[in-house]
Amino acid sequence: MFILFVFNQSRLWDTLHHTAQWGATPDGGVRRLTLTPEDKAVREWFVQHAEEIGAAVKIDQMGNLFAIRPGRNNSMPPIGIGSHLDTQPAGGRYDGILGVQAGIEALKVLKENNYETYAPIAVINWTNEEGARFNTGMLSSGVWAGQIDQDYAYNHRDADGKLFGDELKAIGFQGSLEASHKANPLSAHFEYHIEQGPVLLDAKKPIGVVTGVQGMGWLIVTVTGRCQHCGTTPMDRRADALLAASRMISRVNEIALESGGMTTVGVINSEPQSPGTIPGKVVFSVDFCHLDNDAMDAMVARTRSEFADIAKAHNNEVGIEQIWRSAAVKFHPECIDCVTQAAIDSVGPDGYMELPAGAGHDSVNTSYICPTSMVFIPSQGGISHHPSEYSTPEDCAQGAQVLLDAVLRFDKKLEATHTH
Amino acid sequence: MFILFVFNQSRLWDTLHHTAQWGATPDGGVRRLTLTPEDKAVREWFVQHAEEIGAAVKIDQMGNLFAIRPGRNNSMPPIGIGSHLDTQPAGGRYDGILGVQAGIEALKVLKENNYETYAPIAVINWTNEEGARFNTGMLSSGVWAGQIDQDYAYNHRDADGKLFGDELKAIGFQGSLEASHKANPLSAHFEYHIEQGPVLLDAKKPIGVVTGVQGMGWLIVTVTGRCQHCGTTPMDRRADALLAASRMISRVNEIALESGGMTTVGVINSEPQSPGTIPGKVVFSVDFCHLDNDAMDAMVARTRSEFADIAKAHNNEVGIEQIWRSAAVKFHPECIDCVTQAAIDSVGPDGYMELPAGAGHDSVNTSYICPTSMVFIPSQGGISHHPSEYSTPEDCAQGAQVLLDAVLRFDKKLEATHTH
Repeated sequence: MFILFVFNQSRLWDTLHHTAQWGATPDGGVRRLTLTPEDKAVREWFVQHAEEIGAAVKIDQMGNLFAIRPGRNNSMPPIGIGSHLDTQPAGGRYDGILGVQAGIEALKVLKENNYETYAPIAVINWTNEEGARFNTGMLSSGVWAGQIDQDYAYNHRDADGKLFGDELKAIGFQGSLEASHKANPLSAHFEYHIEQGPVLLDAKKPIGVVTGVQGMGWLIVTVTGRCQHCGTTPMDRRADALLAASRMISRVNEIALESGGMTTVGVINSEPQSPGTIPGKVVFSVDFCHLDNDAMDAMVARTRSEFADIAKAHNNEVGIEQIWRSAAVKFHPECIDCVTQAAIDSVGPDGYMELPAGAGHDSVNTSYICPTSMVFIPSQGGISHHPSEYSTPEDCAQGAQVLLDAVLRFDKKLEATHTH
Repeated sequence: MFILFVFNQSRLWDTLHHTAQWGATPDGGVRRLTLTPEDKAVREWFVQHAEEIGAAVKIDQMGNLFAIRPGRNNSMPPIGIGSHLDTQPAGGRYDGILGVQAGIEALKVLKENNYETYAPIAVINWTNEEGARFNTGMLSSGVWAGQIDQDYAYNHRDADGKLFGDELKAIGFQGSLEASHKANPLSAHFEYHIEQGPVLLDAKKPIGVVTGVQGMGWLIVTVTGRCQHCGTTPMDRRADALLAASRMISRVNEIALESGGMTTVGVINSEPQSPGTIPGKVVFSVDFCHLDNDAMDAMVARTRSEFADIAKAHNNEVGIEQIWRSAAVKFHPECIDCVTQAAIDSVGPDGYMELPAGAGHDSVNTSYICPTSMVFIPSQGGISHHPSEYSTPEDCAQGAQVLLDAVLRFDKKLEATHTH
């Protein structure tokens, strides 16, 4: 009942690995932290290629890029195909990048087939999705969706104390367009991404239809003890900040297991970093996730209270700041249906499964504003945020096919709604 | 039965705080890492002042400085008064520094009183005692004592990868004299130091007669897991290197308590330091101490075996390298007796106590070669390796008095032995 345009598997694959040159690491991974020279280079590639396909590129005040291919009714807000081109410090070649490249490829396929959509199609690169350099994930889609204040975003500092706002200007990607869904609306948002986990691989399903995203958040924990000489200070006279922090890290892991959620301490910094001195101050991050928002908040409350007990037992002070919370969300039934139908056409009724996303994605923010859903493909070894991150060329092309098909299905629904 | 020369309390105090300018931190502490420009500056001060008192300064191939005031019999090896001018990264104004300054002050007092000793007196600044920049404590006295190979010492790298040997040349303090007790012998070694612990303060004793030093050592532990995305990797599929390391740090603390020893993890580095990524590699140091050498080695063996179990339980690999071991030592009865008699003369029979040193000192290395002992004074709050490290001007002068008196007593014993 619906015409599929055939994706060019090798061209998508070649483009993906061609653009990996910006931030490529010797181990085959990519280190492309947001607003760095590597990020600037891949953004310039994005703009050039979008314009070659006849798409006009809009840049907003958060550096979000919108490559818009016109439709038959350009008074309609575009249907978005969005993801991100930034990576983790030791990241791979697929996380985020595949979703943007598949979008660019989708515009090429539509152009080659002279297919004119009803609504315009916007391929979007959202800025600082990873939150690796500036520690708030999905920062710029959050501003677009009105979830995060732009001044707050601009005032984020990286590890060297550099401001997000200054760095955005420095690479020349601070646009004039207001970073807002009101000034720059979308009719819908579809995101194509690797699963980053082992579920699809274990279930032997090439396509995942994403029904929502688990809740998640970050704490910054500061443990303050007392620097003392380690050879001369009896064990019972100490306020060892790293010992207290270690017991917190061990404990928060148990709390997550007991709460049916997940937690990770990904960053730790201890002072003064001398083998002969008892650490006087330790700062660490806590990432937590849960499918249920109330259970997630209860997990955080319990962590706060048990950390206070551990600090007290070790003669330390503890300060806990929640710097980020992203509620669990459910995606839009119409978008989920478009992805499901596209998956059935592409891999058959047994080739796909529904699942929630475990990681944060810009689609969480768009889902507050417009109909949203996502397409997943298997991650080899369930590995992501690592140079060995890999998905097969076949899976990459198949997922892109499902993405385009889902977008065109939604476009048809839009047309039906607005012309009858 | 013995003439005491009166120390100039305010002059010692003023000198101590004058030289704190090299590496002074806003919080009143000192950051004077070995072989840095700050270390170079205080070394130049040392040479200039020693020469003004009429002492000749010898520099050996490890940068150890020997300021030698001649005696009546200069065929006798000098009696050493040694300590160090380097500090911890966030150190105080007394640890090590006081012992060298008191030595310089002692030479001034002898000169002012026109007192000619039998043996020459050498005030010594030992290089890299702290092991904070180049991670082996008491490095250069160790080379002098034949405990550490000089090439091994030269090949130590700091956190920036700079070599000890290159940095020593760079500040212009690589001497031509062989760094060896054979080429450059001492008749004895006396060291004056703050206690760095709470024992003297609690016991209300202004002077500590140090009978020996507890055994100690350092391990470098490398825990290797797998970087994975924290939101998408089920808890039971992880190899979280920081979680494993945290449980090791917690456990080694219990092992120390159970063994009657002490342990501290002072340095920890985790990779890749992103809140959204499970750490794949953690490296940390373990400092351990024990008064009994066998018990100390048993403590290390148990740590190795339990760390291996913890690593296995968390799907991690662990590598453990012992980079330093300093056996527990007992000081020389004659030197201990000289310090004891000097203490009695200065503070009376109830004013002192005997105790072992909890920290490593260059006197551990000299004690393998020549008669050695130490003088301690109270540390306010038992605090050391911290900017708030403090001892009163009265205590500082009193300890220096005991130091000089003990040295002169040993000098008399030497003369008696060699002239009768």
